[in-house]
Amino acid sequence: MELAILGLGKMGFNLMENLLDHKHEVVAFDIDHNLVEQAEAVGAKGATSIQKVFKQLDGKKIIWMMVPAGEITEKLIVDLKPYLSEEDILIDGGNSNYKDTVKRYHDLKNKGISYIDVGTSGGMEGAREGACTMIGGDKEVFDQIEPIFKDISVENGYLYTGESGSGHFLKMVHNGVEYGMMQAMSEGFDILEKSTYDFDHEKVARVWNNGSVIRSWLMELMESAFSEDPKLDKIRGIVHASGEGKWTVETALELETAAPVIALSLMMRNRSLESDSFSGKVVASLRNQFGGHAVEKQ
Amino acid sequence: MELAILGLGKMGFNLMENLLDHKHEVVAFDIDHNLVEQAEAVGAKGATSIQKVFKQLDGKKIIWMMVPAGEITEKLIVDLKPYLSEEDILIDGGNSNYKDTVKRYHDLKNKGISYIDVGTSGGMEGAREGACTMIGGDKEVFDQIEPIFKDISVENGYLYTGESGSGHFLKMVHNGVEYGMMQAMSEGFDILEKSTYDFDHEKVARVWNNGSVIRSWLMELMESAFSEDPKLDKIRGIVHASGEGKWTVETALELETAAPVIALSLMMRNRSLESDSFSGKVVASLRNQFGGHAVEKQ
Repeated sequence: MELAILGLGKMGFNLMENLLDHKHEVVAFDIDHNLVEQAEAVGAKGATSIQKVFKQLDGKKIIWMMVPAGEITEKLIVDLKPYLSEEDILIDGGNSNYKDTVKRYHDLKNKGISYIDVGTSGGMEGAREGACTMIGGDKEVFDQIEPIFKDISVENGYLYTGESGSGHFLKMVHNGVEYGMMQAMSEGFDILEKSTYDFDHEKVARVWNNGSVIRSWLMELMESAFSEDPKLDKIRGIVHASGEGKWTVETALELETAAPVIALSLMMRNRSLESDSFSGKVVASLRNQFGGHAVEKQ
Repeated sequence: MELAILGLGKMGFNLMENLLDHKHEVVAFDIDHNLVEQAEAVGAKGATSIQKVFKQLDGKKIIWMMVPAGEITEKLIVDLKPYLSEEDILIDGGNSNYKDTVKRYHDLKNKGISYIDVGTSGGMEGAREGACTMIGGDKEVFDQIEPIFKDISVENGYLYTGESGSGHFLKMVHNGVEYGMMQAMSEGFDILEKSTYDFDHEKVARVWNNGSVIRSWLMELMESAFSEDPKLDKIRGIVHASGEGKWTVETALELETAAPVIALSLMMRNRSLESDSFSGKVVASLRNQFGGHAVEKQ
């Protein structure tokens, strides 16, 4: 099929190459013109402006946005609106908050434009070689573009998830689960590292990846990380978050359900951002107040 | 090689068949004589007493215990001791606490008997078709029996982990990580179940298993569970624990390190054992005391 990819970052560029492999005609746009040139070099039709994107597309247009969630996505949609016509299909493949997605869906639907949300998992390698895609929006629109998802995903790796927002909702929860799985794994390796035994983390990750109950792609990534840096000496234990874990916890709060491990995994990331903690100072000062317990001075 | 398997339960019987597939000569013992007969039917030499086990073994003996950890393992070792000679090798393939293992290692070493601890992962299917094994104890003893572990494990699925207790320690931490991963996954599906979207859990597990970051054997097991019972209506959400998660948390406490997600996963299992909670009553009564908030009566 003919479609445009807007945003040629780590995910967008790999996705574009994946689409080209499957003989789709791709118009590739990024604000960074170097990336547009690189896209042309691998077979895409480059476009250095939104206007030029639309000049190169015929008939019913399919536009796939692969840009950071939030303001950048919002601004891109504002920029696209004047060019979009009835029956065009706009796809958001980023990690947008599903509530924003539902709002955008209704806003665009009023203008006759179809809006599809795609949660994309599998990292850069997945975008390039075969991703996992979770697709929300109108079923009849999904049916028209299903071949795209079939081509860019691994076998059994795409799912129409239901009405608008459900694709991004499912990807959000996927990421929440990912936070918890990663934190659980991290605590295990931390205990191994501090134990009196002399474990080789790479070998541990390898044996756990072969036949154990906890074998997983994340454990394979740990094996790879430890093979490059056996004690992870080259990096600091500071863990940022990009929103989906927080939204998962907010959703759990809205649904009045318990998701303590996902919440705590997020908060352990928050804790990791601080080299010292005010809460630690509060508890240390209280222990000193009531029991005269020593405090550590600055 | 020639060895005895003591304990023909779910794990032991499958392990025995796995050993027979690899042309090992297995003497099979269980207190349940029906299981001994079943073992004979698939090619093992049956033994209905410890005495008969040793009568059927020649020279340096290799004895693999595959029985529940704790008292049963302890009692079996007491029963075995009179029969064990110098240079015999006793293997504990169960989920023993690594501290018990180290004590037993030293006790048996004083009598010249070698003691090897094996953490075995992969469930019944792993025991039968290829397990993940983590082996602690004296290296020169491991070297003598390495072919056994090579045969019963999947490729790259066995690891000599170091001195006595390290195999059981590593399996303990593996199970702690497993608790956290399972709890994280459970919270994700709980949010999906309660959301306003209509997700098909089996299809969700399937798409997550194909190309996503959280693809894992545990997620494959979820796909299988949801395929048999789409809303898990046939079971109750009561989760027992068999010790390794608790020991992982106890180890984290001894090491004075943070393992909050593994600890909380264990405590969520503990909470699941109660249909109502005294702590809930305490908080409800306090809310009533200070704010007049309604309580729900029995």
